[in-house]
Amino acid sequence: MRGRPDRGTVATYIPELACVDPAAFGLAVITADGEIACGGDCDKPFSIQSVSKVFTFTMALGRYGNLLWKRVGREPSGSPFNSIVQLERERGIPRNPFINAGAIAVTDLILSGHQPREALGEILRFMQFVCDDPSVYIDEAVAASEQRTGFRNAALANYMKSFGVLDNPVDLTLGVYFHQCAIAMSCVQLAKAGRFLALQGRNPTTGLSVVPAERARRINAVMLTCGHYDGSGEFAYRVGLPGKSGVGGGILMIAPGKASVAVWSPGLDDAGNSHLGRIALESLSQRMGWSIFGA
Amino acid sequence: MRGRPDRGTVATYIPELACVDPAAFGLAVITADGEIACGGDCDKPFSIQSVSKVFTFTMALGRYGNLLWKRVGREPSGSPFNSIVQLERERGIPRNPFINAGAIAVTDLILSGHQPREALGEILRFMQFVCDDPSVYIDEAVAASEQRTGFRNAALANYMKSFGVLDNPVDLTLGVYFHQCAIAMSCVQLAKAGRFLALQGRNPTTGLSVVPAERARRINAVMLTCGHYDGSGEFAYRVGLPGKSGVGGGILMIAPGKASVAVWSPGLDDAGNSHLGRIALESLSQRMGWSIFGA
Amino acid sequence: MRGRPDRGTVATYIPELACVDPAAFGLAVITADGEIACGGDCDKPFSIQSVSKVFTFTMALGRYGNLLWKRVGREPSGSPFNSIVQLERERGIPRNPFINAGAIAVTDLILSGHQPREALGEILRFMQFVCDDPSVYIDEAVAASEQRTGFRNAALANYMKSFGVLDNPVDLTLGVYFHQCAIAMSCVQLAKAGRFLALQGRNPTTGLSVVPAERARRINAVMLTCGHYDGSGEFAYRVGLPGKSGVGGGILMIAPGKASVAVWSPGLDDAGNSHLGRIALESLSQRMGWSIFGA
Amino acid sequence: MRGRPDRGTVATYIPELACVDPAAFGLAVITADGEIACGGDCDKPFSIQSVSKVFTFTMALGRYGNLLWKRVGREPSGSPFNSIVQLERERGIPRNPFINAGAIAVTDLILSGHQPREALGEILRFMQFVCDDPSVYIDEAVAASEQRTGFRNAALANYMKSFGVLDNPVDLTLGVYFHQCAIAMSCVQLAKAGRFLALQGRNPTTGLSVVPAERARRINAVMLTCGHYDGSGEFAYRVGLPGKSGVGGGILMIAPGKASVAVWSPGLDDAGNSHLGRIALESLSQRMGWSIFGA
Repeated sequence: MRGRPDRGTVATYIPELACVDPAAFGLAVITADGEIACGGDCDKPFSIQSVSKVFTFTMALGRYGNLLWKRVGREPSGSPFNSIVQLERERGIPRNPFINAGAIAVTDLILSGHQPREALGEILRFMQFVCDDPSVYIDEAVAASEQRTGFRNAALANYMKSFGVLDNPVDLTLGVYFHQCAIAMSCVQLAKAGRFLALQGRNPTTGLSVVPAERARRINAVMLTCGHYDGSGEFAYRVGLPGKSGVGGGILMIAPGKASVAVWSPGLDDAGNSHLGRIALESLSQRMGWSIFGA
Repeated sequence: MRGRPDRGTVATYIPELACVDPAAFGLAVITADGEIACGGDCDKPFSIQSVSKVFTFTMALGRYGNLLWKRVGREPSGSPFNSIVQLERERGIPRNPFINAGAIAVTDLILSGHQPREALGEILRFMQFVCDDPSVYIDEAVAASEQRTGFRNAALANYMKSFGVLDNPVDLTLGVYFHQCAIAMSCVQLAKAGRFLALQGRNPTTGLSVVPAERARRINAVMLTCGHYDGSGEFAYRVGLPGKSGVGGGILMIAPGKASVAVWSPGLDDAGNSHLGRIALESLSQRMGWSIFGA
Repeated sequence: MRGRPDRGTVATYIPELACVDPAAFGLAVITADGEIACGGDCDKPFSIQSVSKVFTFTMALGRYGNLLWKRVGREPSGSPFNSIVQLERERGIPRNPFINAGAIAVTDLILSGHQPREALGEILRFMQFVCDDPSVYIDEAVAASEQRTGFRNAALANYMKSFGVLDNPVDLTLGVYFHQCAIAMSCVQLAKAGRFLALQGRNPTTGLSVVPAERARRINAVMLTCGHYDGSGEFAYRVGLPGKSGVGGGILMIAPGKASVAVWSPGLDDAGNSHLGRIALESLSQRMGWSIFGA
Repeated sequence: MRGRPDRGTVATYIPELACVDPAAFGLAVITADGEIACGGDCDKPFSIQSVSKVFTFTMALGRYGNLLWKRVGREPSGSPFNSIVQLERERGIPRNPFINAGAIAVTDLILSGHQPREALGEILRFMQFVCDDPSVYIDEAVAASEQRTGFRNAALANYMKSFGVLDNPVDLTLGVYFHQCAIAMSCVQLAKAGRFLALQGRNPTTGLSVVPAERARRINAVMLTCGHYDGSGEFAYRVGLPGKSGVGGGILMIAPGKASVAVWSPGLDDAGNSHLGRIALESLSQRMGWSIFGA
């Protein structure tokens, strides 16, 4: 895979991300019984960016339950990750928790009743908990870089605020959001973190239930329909499994009952999803017969 | 289910459909090993309307393969079934084969090189073949009713024609489309017809392969992400299985490897999908543990 | 002006219009006291296309008065001449009578209660009346050409029909509309035809009042804000007078109290307005000090 | 006029504006030869809000000339004053200088190369200069109120910033913008301030030329096509003169060569323009025969 010439383009709109080696490639698979297969730069931390939305969405569902759906929808948007058009048509309610506006609304809910530092600590601890690894950290340089340049996200947040969809001061919500996106994890850590979604909400290593089985299924459903912005249909069509991508080049993919997979390759396709990452996951899913659309 | 008070609203925009008994309710399940469980008005033919799009899409994929994707996309639209806004932004290429514009483009491809009567005969014979029942017919009164009032579809077709996305005269393509939507089938017939999608493309009764296994998976993927218009995310979230609805009140649902299910209840919800039908399928999927999003 | 190299592009979407000599250029000015100054191909008939909308709008205002505004708005659209997006947002009511959708809605009102042939005769006679010249005719080849290829207009008409904004069968309304656009007139005839708009609704040659003074003012106001599609602001900014363009390359311009002007040059700019025609009118308006925005 | 029951609704989205007496009504007319006719609350200062956009636009045209048009268009938007949809379609370039986004872009240009305090001083001095009255001031309470609640404007500004359309930090540009909108003037002062637009750019009282005659005409043209958001066509149709409204209930209207008029009535119509103000101006324009659309 590393020799493949067309790797897509590394995201440059967050300056700090543009420094990443475009030739990096890592893959980690954890099967249901806990076996790990991995390769390439699978232990090198990268900026998980929007993959973090899966976990903040999980946290907010746990705290707010169905009340969450008053602030965000669960339909595919048919629009790019940072589109604002849909917000104007639907009075500030984002289409789903995996586009930027929706994830900011989710983060705002997690922040409510807390100081930013506490909320961020809670998010980080949740990430460390689900992957059972306390070494997960926030890359402050990436967070600062995004904070300096995240005008599009500031537009989305202010827009929602004008409709009363955000509770907290815009700057505070964005501060937490940018830091959450700047969480750095390796493929191995990320695959471990997604394991509960493949196993009915339980983490067999820790023996703990992260979410009820039904909720794990529902999170997977939202990942499948909305996890790749306006490339979600393509991912479902080609790969046939729930997944969530980030502009750092990472993708988390869940094969329910079978495996949790993380891939990392920084070059992105036009829809903002890892180009080689998606190809690798398509190939893996086909060889393993993991598609959820046919036994 | 029949006693449930809130049944939604019967579609009235096709006058002939407004005559249907709103209290009708039918359900049919065919399991992988061929057992049939059914109840209610499960043998009464109803207008399958947009459920027909699954089968014309299957036919066109068979004839054109990946060339089909030059005429239609495979992303959720984030819009109602008859929206035209997306077409203007994307130069006449419909988002997916399950919104009206996309289905009209697919029917146009099936019509190419044929007389309308031939193309329609081919579609009808395909429906009879997949459900192994020659009694499937076209309700001419419904077709005529839709032809008289289908201005929105005529707008979509003319719009695509102006971009060169349709090959045939608009009137002919629409004529075939309105007749295809007027195919009348019972729940039992429809469940049988969908069986190949649950069984890797094969129909065990006839012993014939309808499509290759990979194609069956891909059709299911498009059904899951796009099968319920701007209620597709909701169906995936609640039911967790691929499905395709029609404004006649029918829904075809596929549990890969396990069952093909058809339900019919004419009252529709706001997104134009059968209200009780969806609730029945959600309940069935949960009790049977059929969701594809968690083993 | 004829030597100017950049002439824009002749409209090709109506095949018959593409045959016009791109080097043609005509200009005719009629002053308040009836003097005519003209030059170039000022006596050669050309297809007035959307300039006809000024006159059908005038006719419909006369017959329906303010009831007309139930079918069409009077705000600039901010969109190209053939956009359909705005119609979806505003339930089939076109923004103004000078975009295609609005002009079709106006023609539909004129058709109501008549046979198409009668309605068309009435429109043609009105054109002959206002320019006091019975030789104005309809170019059947252009009408037929547009009828064969006018899919975008058919989309607009069917779309409005689906919202009940049109009363008559779509084909009949479009038939009248395509013929009205195919009216052929010379610059001299067109300048004469617009004279009543410059002179408080009266035609001094015939001595007849075409419309009340207040209505003439209001028609001019709609021409200024909406007469050049999404180039209306540009025309107001540069030329400073009400005007209406057509894709045949003609523009009618009114200098209230001073003159009626028609120009013809087939090459169009990006907004679909005559490129040299607009430049000529800008130059004329400046030299004569005709701008309505400063004494 | 004061007794008229339906006065529209006072703007409440800026809390401080909601405190204004809804029954206030003032009118001031200054004719070409300097006579002043006024009545009602014509000497009471009110928040001019968006009327200020006429003057910052004038300043920016003076400093940047046609380079200004690289940052903002001059076409009607067909959208409400605070719409963001158009910005996404047109890569962050606002349609015209009189919608909020466009005015923010203009203010950003005025700010460039200056400290916010300097830029604001320059704007205030220009207002004092054109109305020849040093008592014009900025209402800090209104500015502070808008700064606390102007999330929609912050969304617009951040959105443009993400496309590089703003040069300065968003907070600084918005700070100047909110203060400029909070300028308080009476009808008499405002009518005086607009006088140069009626008189070919000259101010006869001071004897100074504010702008060249051609520029005054062009500013009037933009006011006519864009001065009342998506009610601009209506104002042109009914009143027939260039005008610019503000959510504080003020409207500045220019009768070229004849008069400058200011009206103030805080109740707004659906498009955000002063309800009684517009009716008063329509009545005045008709009685005086001032419409620019018919001699």
